[in-house]
Amino acid sequence: MGPLIIGIAGGSGSGKTTIAHKIAAAVPPESVSIIEHDAYYRDRQDLTFDERCQLNFDHPESLETELLIEHLRRLREGAPIMAPIYDFKTHRRQTEHRKVESTPVIIVEGILVLVDPLLRAQLDAKIYVDTDADIRAFRRIRRDIEQRGRTFESVREQYYRSVRPMHLQYVEPSKRWADLIIPEGGENRVALDMIASKLRAVIIENV
Amino acid sequence: MGPLIIGIAGGSGSGKTTIAHKIAAAVPPESVSIIEHDAYYRDRQDLTFDERCQLNFDHPESLETELLIEHLRRLREGAPIMAPIYDFKTHRRQTEHRKVESTPVIIVEGILVLVDPLLRAQLDAKIYVDTDADIRAFRRIRRDIEQRGRTFESVREQYYRSVRPMHLQYVEPSKRWADLIIPEGGENRVALDMIASKLRAVIIENV
Repeated sequence: MGPLIIGIAGGSGSGKTTIAHKIAAAVPPESVSIIEHDAYYRDRQDLTFDERCQLNFDHPESLETELLIEHLRRLREGAPIMAPIYDFKTHRRQTEHRKVESTPVIIVEGILVLVDPLLRAQLDAKIYVDTDADIRAFRRIRRDIEQRGRTFESVREQYYRSVRPMHLQYVEPSKRWADLIIPEGGENRVALDMIASKLRAVIIENV
Repeated sequence: MGPLIIGIAGGSGSGKTTIAHKIAAAVPPESVSIIEHDAYYRDRQDLTFDERCQLNFDHPESLETELLIEHLRRLREGAPIMAPIYDFKTHRRQTEHRKVESTPVIIVEGILVLVDPLLRAQLDAKIYVDTDADIRAFRRIRRDIEQRGRTFESVREQYYRSVRPMHLQYVEPSKRWADLIIPEGGENRVALDMIASKLRAVIIENV
């Protein structure tokens, strides 16, 4: 039996990364891998640094999703992959890679994970973390200011320029493809518990 | 360990009853009971038959939710209950009751199951089945015409008079309280499978 591949999508600040890690923590570490769609940002060496900074990182075309799909196919066949590592400071792909084993459970997370039909076809379970837009906005502002040293003004500018339009055009409509929608505004123990039960059952079957 | 009590809400025609039965079918029949909120319609013997026919059966006040809450408390303590049986032809409660045992899993289903805070407090998991309004409308019309022998005109009249306003006022906003939202428009095998895994784990723990 191949791995169970779970996609977790949701807007920026929805809490999808936290949920991905909590789901992963519910099973033994050797049986689960997390892959971030963000790691597959295209390596635009054809552009200058300033040009790369101006790219729309919330648009599906900014990601090399075809490589992620190819990687998921290989993981499903039981083979390990070498996932890219993206450097968010230089906006380049690093020369190093990260080895990901074909574990019984593989979690793929990112805002655009449910957008591409070929990527969706690789997902055994499609989860959308649905958080109110105001809570997402506050979280994003706080993260960018506190953890990334940005000014409120630059966060706001980027939000109106790309984050919000791409959310409305791609992220929010992709909720339609979800098998399960997790409302989130803090702790959602019940939803995590249901998903964890399924993963434990999968791991028992795989032993 | 007491029973796990799961509430399943959603609009008329959302498929919540089908989902409740599919979830129940995933575990041995002796470990699960389904309680319909509808069975707790108030017995308005103070009204004539014609007056009862004019009642708003989509309003929370039409249900004796306080009795359902009391019953769930007793089931949680391990005691059986005698659930009412409602006669939808005469709009009266029947003199007979239905014995419900305190099984490891108890499913409570109905359009208004997530509306009352005291009822919500009795639910260990709150599920909302979210189906597009047009699909719900077609299903309701078909059911009322094919199974209940009603005319399209009478279905339409009731829909605009009470079903739709009560949905917008009570049912749809109660989605906010859900732990898990299940998009439905046909078969949602993945969501059912996750919930079933949790129930099987609960039943194993109860043995």
